[in-house]
Amino acid sequence: MKVLALSGSLRAASINSMLLRAMARLAPAGISVSVFQGLGELPLFNPDREADCPARVAEFQRLVAESDALIIASPEYAHGVSGTIKNALDWLVGFEAFASKAVAVLNASPRAHHADSALRETLRTMAANIVESASISIPLLGANLSESAMMVTPSVVSAIRESLEALRQGVKSLQPGSLPTFSIR
Amino acid sequence: MKVLALSGSLRAASINSMLLRAMARLAPAGISVSVFQGLGELPLFNPDREADCPARVAEFQRLVAESDALIIASPEYAHGVSGTIKNALDWLVGFEAFASKAVAVLNASPRAHHADSALRETLRTMAANIVESASISIPLLGANLSESAMMVTPSVVSAIRESLEALRQGVKSLQPGSLPTFSIR
Repeated sequence: MKVLALSGSLRAASINSMLLRAMARLAPAGISVSVFQGLGELPLFNPDREADCPARVAEFQRLVAESDALIIASPEYAHGVSGTIKNALDWLVGFEAFASKAVAVLNASPRAHHADSALRETLRTMAANIVESASISIPLLGANLSESAMMVTPSVVSAIRESLEALRQGVKSLQPGSLPTFSIR
Repeated sequence: MKVLALSGSLRAASINSMLLRAMARLAPAGISVSVFQGLGELPLFNPDREADCPARVAEFQRLVAESDALIIASPEYAHGVSGTIKNALDWLVGFEAFASKAVAVLNASPRAHHADSALRETLRTMAANIVESASISIPLLGANLSESAMMVTPSVVSAIRESLEALRQGVKSLQPGSLPTFSIR
């Protein structure tokens, strides 16, 4: 299973980015998590450029299309989503391969609920399949853990592993033929 | 009174941008409305670069600081704010001259309420003074009016004039000494 991870913060010491990198390193066999590095270089969304996308957007869309699932971890800025994550999603609204994609929405700051709710509302509107069992809240903001510390903190490690396993199940259950078929007579 | 107008859409034929340009042209004596052209060229917000802002951000902040009020007109994308307007606001969260600024929030698509609510929540969190009497809803989306047509449509013209007059009153009422002072004995 290929997973593309998106951090909504460009801060070098972002806890969201650290969490995603820790997930990439802790991913169990059969799951490959790749943290996308280029969100900060995407141009701001312009509907006039959708038909003939800028190269960086086309590359981002290609990586999304090739992934079985996305993981999003994004901060809350002034009770809203970060402009960076919303801009990335704006480029995916009209991108067919995004619809029905399995998405886990992580929240590293559970007391911040505005951005989390707004992000989920947008993802639902974009027809994403939010995998709730994989969408964990981990109170990392203020916990002052480095990335290496996260990787040896049992509660964080088990939350990460459970999230990835839940995402794997979520992706499996979305595959064609995975739903029971009832015949109507 | 100097007003800086921000459109959350980069589309050339954006109704939000057209509305703001019409406001600039219809502004009564004593009110100068300037539509900011550079939102699409702002880099994506990076907290690590706040202390030593990129030149385009510094120029944007200077224009904000020099304005008596802002007018924001922004579309809703996938039940959320546009990444473009949120990114611009992200650069203003830590900018002292923004706090207490008078802001009118226009909605050219009144049936779209998610982005409007989210934008207001963010602006309140940033300590903006939303001037409600100036924050008009005009059902322009789908009305198929050109900018020139807006300028000769009586309902649009009067809505624009009323919004600008209300903004002028709002700015006046926010000036030091404009509130009645009661002495406590």
